[in-house]
Amino acid sequence: MDPLRERMERLYPLCRSLTGDGVRESLAILAETVPLELRTAASGTPVFDWTVPPEWNARAARITDAATGRVLVDLADHTLHLVSYSVPFRGRLSRAELEPHLHSLPDRPDWIPYRTSYYARDWGFCLTQRQRDALGEGPFDVDVDTSLAPGELTYGELLVPGASVEAGEVLVTSHLCHPSLANDNLTGLTVAVELARRLAERPHRLGYRFVFAPGTIGSLVWLRDHPDVLPRLRHVLVLTGLGGGGPLVYKRSRPGDAPLDLAAAHVLRHRGGRLIDYAPYGYDERQFNALGFGLPAGRLTRTPHGEYPEYHTSADDLGFVTDEELYDALAAIEEIFGVLEGEATYRALQPYGEPQLGRRGLYPAVGGRTASEASMAMLWLLACSDGGTSVREIADRAGLPFALLRRAADDLVGAELLAPV
Amino acid sequence: MDPLRERMERLYPLCRSLTGDGVRESLAILAETVPLELRTAASGTPVFDWTVPPEWNARAARITDAATGRVLVDLADHTLHLVSYSVPFRGRLSRAELEPHLHSLPDRPDWIPYRTSYYARDWGFCLTQRQRDALGEGPFDVDVDTSLAPGELTYGELLVPGASVEAGEVLVTSHLCHPSLANDNLTGLTVAVELARRLAERPHRLGYRFVFAPGTIGSLVWLRDHPDVLPRLRHVLVLTGLGGGGPLVYKRSRPGDAPLDLAAAHVLRHRGGRLIDYAPYGYDERQFNALGFGLPAGRLTRTPHGEYPEYHTSADDLGFVTDEELYDALAAIEEIFGVLEGEATYRALQPYGEPQLGRRGLYPAVGGRTASEASMAMLWLLACSDGGTSVREIADRAGLPFALLRRAADDLVGAELLAPV
Amino acid sequence: MDPLRERMERLYPLCRSLTGDGVRESLAILAETVPLELRTAASGTPVFDWTVPPEWNARAARITDAATGRVLVDLADHTLHLVSYSVPFRGRLSRAELEPHLHSLPDRPDWIPYRTSYYARDWGFCLTQRQRDALGEGPFDVDVDTSLAPGELTYGELLVPGASVEAGEVLVTSHLCHPSLANDNLTGLTVAVELARRLAERPHRLGYRFVFAPGTIGSLVWLRDHPDVLPRLRHVLVLTGLGGGGPLVYKRSRPGDAPLDLAAAHVLRHRGGRLIDYAPYGYDERQFNALGFGLPAGRLTRTPHGEYPEYHTSADDLGFVTDEELYDALAAIEEIFGVLEGEATYRALQPYGEPQLGRRGLYPAVGGRTASEASMAMLWLLACSDGGTSVREIADRAGLPFALLRRAADDLVGAELLAPV
Repeated sequence: MDPLRERMERLYPLCRSLTGDGVRESLAILAETVPLELRTAASGTPVFDWTVPPEWNARAARITDAATGRVLVDLADHTLHLVSYSVPFRGRLSRAELEPHLHSLPDRPDWIPYRTSYYARDWGFCLTQRQRDALGEGPFDVDVDTSLAPGELTYGELLVPGASVEAGEVLVTSHLCHPSLANDNLTGLTVAVELARRLAERPHRLGYRFVFAPGTIGSLVWLRDHPDVLPRLRHVLVLTGLGGGGPLVYKRSRPGDAPLDLAAAHVLRHRGGRLIDYAPYGYDERQFNALGFGLPAGRLTRTPHGEYPEYHTSADDLGFVTDEELYDALAAIEEIFGVLEGEATYRALQPYGEPQLGRRGLYPAVGGRTASEASMAMLWLLACSDGGTSVREIADRAGLPFALLRRAADDLVGAELLAPV
Repeated sequence: MDPLRERMERLYPLCRSLTGDGVRESLAILAETVPLELRTAASGTPVFDWTVPPEWNARAARITDAATGRVLVDLADHTLHLVSYSVPFRGRLSRAELEPHLHSLPDRPDWIPYRTSYYARDWGFCLTQRQRDALGEGPFDVDVDTSLAPGELTYGELLVPGASVEAGEVLVTSHLCHPSLANDNLTGLTVAVELARRLAERPHRLGYRFVFAPGTIGSLVWLRDHPDVLPRLRHVLVLTGLGGGGPLVYKRSRPGDAPLDLAAAHVLRHRGGRLIDYAPYGYDERQFNALGFGLPAGRLTRTPHGEYPEYHTSADDLGFVTDEELYDALAAIEEIFGVLEGEATYRALQPYGEPQLGRRGLYPAVGGRTASEASMAMLWLLACSDGGTSVREIADRAGLPFALLRRAADDLVGAELLAPV
Repeated sequence: MDPLRERMERLYPLCRSLTGDGVRESLAILAETVPLELRTAASGTPVFDWTVPPEWNARAARITDAATGRVLVDLADHTLHLVSYSVPFRGRLSRAELEPHLHSLPDRPDWIPYRTSYYARDWGFCLTQRQRDALGEGPFDVDVDTSLAPGELTYGELLVPGASVEAGEVLVTSHLCHPSLANDNLTGLTVAVELARRLAERPHRLGYRFVFAPGTIGSLVWLRDHPDVLPRLRHVLVLTGLGGGGPLVYKRSRPGDAPLDLAAAHVLRHRGGRLIDYAPYGYDERQFNALGFGLPAGRLTRTPHGEYPEYHTSADDLGFVTDEELYDALAAIEEIFGVLEGEATYRALQPYGEPQLGRRGLYPAVGGRTASEASMAMLWLLACSDGGTSVREIADRAGLPFALLRRAADDLVGAELLAPV
């Protein structure tokens, strides 16, 4: 079985939330591939405008028909059945008393919705509409065997160092708090870990830092923990929802024209992806882009949140994501990182007219035909390398892939026709 | 009967022109609703490159068949029959002699055109093509019983003061010189007077100044009379042609990006209106936008001049305008003024990540669903209030209505998450 | 016969290349219409990154069937049969040995391609695919009776001086090196010479310099020869491919917003032409736009190179170009030069509202109708002549032809309503 798929299958059934054993077990699986450093923040720790919540663990949760003893809804069947952060509860309820604690999707009668109640102390069950319709009149015995107690929030981190500290770092982050939802976000976690593994095996200029943390509060804890790292961050990329069909979608950072935005735009233009503007809703790009941090955070997804019916339901299962989608996302991200790594600015050394490429073996000998893409890449670099226009900018003007211009620039530097500035 | 309609019906038959009794009678009707101050400029007064013309009054004007005594064309039937500012004339003319003095519309045989000869001393009659075809061979007795004599140009003005003189003023102006044409411009006059009445009944920050003056020379007289007011004018809005079908059309000021332009663009985007660029033709926006004054004057119409066949003909009658169009224009203008009144710039007070809206009661307790428009309005304000980006700018970026962000800003100021700069 | 057509017919059969008798004979024909100054550069002269090649002349070239003595391919039949700059060769070859020296177009079996080998010492024949298929198995006697010897590169130049040296110069250039190809580039040469003839007959502000030189190396020689002229060049226009069907296409200079670009954009917008962005491929715009010179060079063609199948084949013959296309190009260029000549910036002298055009005889006396284009031209100039906005800029904003505004500006200067700045 594909190793990415195998990782997703093991992560899928774990009961993740903002805190708790499910998070720690998930991080342990990710740490089998790359060496993750685990960090914690104690419940009650103030984090900017927030506070680390109590640690939540769910041992069991079920609704039983009081008359027959039949179990009607059971956390053991699906992690989505229990509203995340449900407080402990045990009691016998009428149907009317139970109703406000139930969540289902009338339009999608076979799907279980995903609901949370992180900051309002409540309990609840999510179930299919068919289950709900068949509950009967009760009374019901409800058992929510959870604990909310002082504990800790856990996240995993890894730095794959670059050749030069001065070049700065790329932060890649993927939220870890969702339970059995495959696209959102086993895809992000799986692709990020594989990226880290690959980057660790080859040289690169920039450092790549990977963070796997629960959404919102987890990212804020990371931001609070790393005041020394923030000035070194050049680019922040949030990964999530990389399956589910359709082309890749890059969401621009709040400024909208950060180097990562321009690199991603370049790559997706050539790969047929889609760009969307920043909006202060979605995933943890909200925290990094916040005015106080001002970190340019873009986001790569395939299926933007809320734009697909399976979003935050049990239909976002392992079958909703294909291996091809994961590898396509990996290739796209590596291309984007290729632009960040290879970006440079040159000055033409023979600027008086076009240099004679032919006598340097850089141009076809027989004239009269139109130029190849490789020749065009050279001509564009020679025409525009004024010491202030970068290879990526020239590639965008030329409508040619960055990698082609990157290779041509190397050849032209070798021929002493370009010099880096 | 609707009060706006009633006002239009009384104004319709009056014989208005640049000067004369018809102008004064019209101002008297407008002054029944709001207290208008009447001002005058004597004939012969130099006004920038122009001179106030002699006062013109028309007692009677008709063409009679000399043989039969039958009256063929009569000012008493329609104010459009006489070319405005026709000089007095009495005489017997052949058909050939009469012809150069006749104006009709061959393509619209039942409509009377509207023609003026303000600055060339001449007389003339406008008639339907059918009337013209049936005139016969004459001779004709022509009687143009008008007077052109030293007198005065009259205009009406009203200031509805704002809470703060420093906030400046909005000038709303509507031309008063057209005779029996309903859309052009009883709609502008009627809507402007109703606006003034409503504004006088509620508090507002800006002052609103209303001017009802004859076109071109009237606006120039006003501009000459108010050198002290000009520096206080922040926005100039010309109102005319608010009926006649189709969506509202806002014509941008000469600069094109004045605050009024941006407010109107915002409102019309959400109401389904249309924007057109400035051109130095049309109504009195020409005078206010002139280089020497440099006042950013936009214009709201529904049916831009020259773009509808009824323009400047007897077909622009009371049936050409609906009450709904008047009230729709009123609502749009009040929305635009709402943007001007409510525009402000804030600084986020908790900029390190997203503040926890939930514990302040500003966010739904159960998570997992997509955000409401009200939540989005708050998130946008928090994400972009950097002390230099205004509520209207954020509303435009968000694609949300200004009023929604305005309310959200008030809530966030109340929660001490935003502070005005 | 049309004189332009007559010139093309005489130029067509000559065997032009970078150097040699064909170039000199062609310049002699052009010099019959306008007085051309001929200049030369000796073989071996270093020119920036290049060197002037040896002079090449072709006396004869043929492939003969060795068995039958039948001539199979003969330069005497068509100048395209011999690869340009073929080195001398005489020998008997098998079909297999001959093959690498043959060029044909399988998809266009009746066309001869155009091929060059300027800088790689080789020889070759171009032939139709049908000729190639019928060659037989050989052996073949090949005779390439050419000479490559120290000599010179020749170009022709003409300055039509302008009224003011300070106004600067326009360089019009057309490549001279292509043999029997009509569109590419007898059209450019013919139109340029006719332009020069017309310009010499009338007054103009700018100087117009015409250069007829072989491509690339010829332009570089000219650039090396004229360091004193370069600072005076305001605009460079490359002319080529003005026939072949379709609308005129203007290729922008490298900066893309040079005055020539804006003038050409204006004219082609009104004439229905097409604009394309700069790319460092094509004709000698590559040399003038190079970073070291930084001359803003645009290019006018009808059929951009490589975009038509006849490009660089024998199908680009005299029938591929119509007289109408040549005269249409001439008219367009003269309009573009009209913008360059007539461009100016004014300041309104009566800026307080619209001046009273009527009393100056500049406006129709009877009002009520919509304005004519001539009136609109005046109103636009008065509305926008702030001393910093040019006539061309105002024409573009107004969407009116430059010539109309140019005439209106003259009238308004006459009426003392505008003054040049």
